[in-house]
Amino acid sequence: MVTLEQIKSAQRNLPAEIVRTPLMFSADLAERFGTRLFLKAENLQVTGSYKSRAAFTILNNLTTEQKQKGAALSSSGNFAGAFAFMGRLLGIPVSVVMMEKTAPFKIEKTRRYGAEVVMCENRFAARFETLDRLEQERGITAINHFEDPHVIAGHGTLGPEILVQLPEVATILVPISSGGLIAGVATAVKEINPRVEIIGVQPEGANATYLSFQSGEIQSIEDTETICDALVATQPGKLPFAHIQKYVDDVVTVTDEDVTSAMRLLFETTKLVVEPSGAVGIAALRSGAVSGSDNTVILLSGGNVARETYVRILSE
Amino acid sequence: MVTLEQIKSAQRNLPAEIVRTPLMFSADLAERFGTRLFLKAENLQVTGSYKSRAAFTILNNLTTEQKQKGAALSSSGNFAGAFAFMGRLLGIPVSVVMMEKTAPFKIEKTRRYGAEVVMCENRFAARFETLDRLEQERGITAINHFEDPHVIAGHGTLGPEILVQLPEVATILVPISSGGLIAGVATAVKEINPRVEIIGVQPEGANATYLSFQSGEIQSIEDTETICDALVATQPGKLPFAHIQKYVDDVVTVTDEDVTSAMRLLFETTKLVVEPSGAVGIAALRSGAVSGSDNTVILLSGGNVARETYVRILSE
Repeated sequence: MVTLEQIKSAQRNLPAEIVRTPLMFSADLAERFGTRLFLKAENLQVTGSYKSRAAFTILNNLTTEQKQKGAALSSSGNFAGAFAFMGRLLGIPVSVVMMEKTAPFKIEKTRRYGAEVVMCENRFAARFETLDRLEQERGITAINHFEDPHVIAGHGTLGPEILVQLPEVATILVPISSGGLIAGVATAVKEINPRVEIIGVQPEGANATYLSFQSGEIQSIEDTETICDALVATQPGKLPFAHIQKYVDDVVTVTDEDVTSAMRLLFETTKLVVEPSGAVGIAALRSGAVSGSDNTVILLSGGNVARETYVRILSE
Repeated sequence: MVTLEQIKSAQRNLPAEIVRTPLMFSADLAERFGTRLFLKAENLQVTGSYKSRAAFTILNNLTTEQKQKGAALSSSGNFAGAFAFMGRLLGIPVSVVMMEKTAPFKIEKTRRYGAEVVMCENRFAARFETLDRLEQERGITAINHFEDPHVIAGHGTLGPEILVQLPEVATILVPISSGGLIAGVATAVKEINPRVEIIGVQPEGANATYLSFQSGEIQSIEDTETICDALVATQPGKLPFAHIQKYVDDVVTVTDEDVTSAMRLLFETTKLVVEPSGAVGIAALRSGAVSGSDNTVILLSGGNVARETYVRILSE
């Protein structure tokens, strides 16, 4: 299990490029929900999502030899951009495996940051098969970000940051895909202040962790169907899930309609561009899946949404 | 003339509702322009624009009797919302005169904050005629925000705030309509650090202050034609212009195409929704009207753009 000390160590090592994103209070949004709520705006993080935190932490912890040979990772998009950016920052050659269906602007962005992009077929397992191949063929370090403790430590740096920005925080809403983000945040926050409630949010059409949390053991789903293209894990990671079982209070789900409504609300009231996956927390408040209470922090995990997609959602 | 001391006094009196908006560094934007630039994100200000600063300062400085009788102001939109919000906060009845062509969502927002909205015809002078009538009929205080020193003092609070957030600031780009914003910012900044360069930006189709600055005396234009619906003054205010002549280094203009390109760039690289009028600074960098240099601060003055308009601009 990843400890608070490991998370604090990751936090101390974060470079200046990692933005201490604002914890925003929106009077309009508070009025709308009738509660004093705050937004942790990781859509304003460098590369447009919180993934930069873990990307740096992973790469920074490679051995000197590993750094020379390079590293690879597979990603639905946001981790790719973050990994590419941090590879360039640290001078480590990186490759990213992406499925053919990945939004072109995310591929372009990853390449622009200087990473090699290796495409694979549209099958979740194909990502890891391709990674294995790269590792064998080239001797590079393939990162399994489902199980890498540095992922949990890196993302966990958000926990102490929120506690400093809002010491009276009562509840934190966190999006879940494979669980690394909520595992880190929950571990850090609960170890510092066990009274803070941590609630995970998943799309109805990608609810593997929700099902796993309900049943008490890891469940897989066949496939995912959701507008939240960064929350498409078909099962939680084993390591994150152990943390979720220990530290998370509840997991809820939201529909795609809840998500797109939340994105429009965020546009109108906060002037923030938030990607579908980043809006699940507001979606859960809107739908009533989570009842709002004062000092709730909603983690807006990212803002990487294609222009066409955003236009379509705003036009609805 | 408004003094630094008056601006500092306004700053001390600002309520907790005024957001100390983040001064954001965007790695993507810096890479794009090849310079270390920063965004002062007043689109994240309460009510969605910097106008909240002056709205509070004006209303807070009314006499007790004036506060009881109420106040009125005319606005193209952003000042209206801010004035309504601050009237409600201070318990002062407020009326806002708006032209019939005002974007409906700005009218709706002003009403939602509890202000009375008085419509007038689509003629710039009609706004002030209506204000005069309200003052005579009701005994309320009509604010002439072109000439009110509290406008300059209130908006000026942005100056010291930027200097604290980035002591090494070299240049600040500021949108200009009637000139109250740049007058306040320039006065505060230059009185504290005369080496900081202050550059104003106007739309080509609403360039009254540009013409006035060039000729050294106030010029009026017949009408305005620009997508920047918050920058439609047909002449600068006399009081702001005196400050502009004393403190501003240059005034440049941008086209509507520069502005919409800037909005798309801000969407993609910063995840911020910025209204046309708020994007003129980035537009000036993009077009080359201003040459980028390190430690340039671009004041993003607001984010109040109708959903349909934003969709249209993103789709271009």
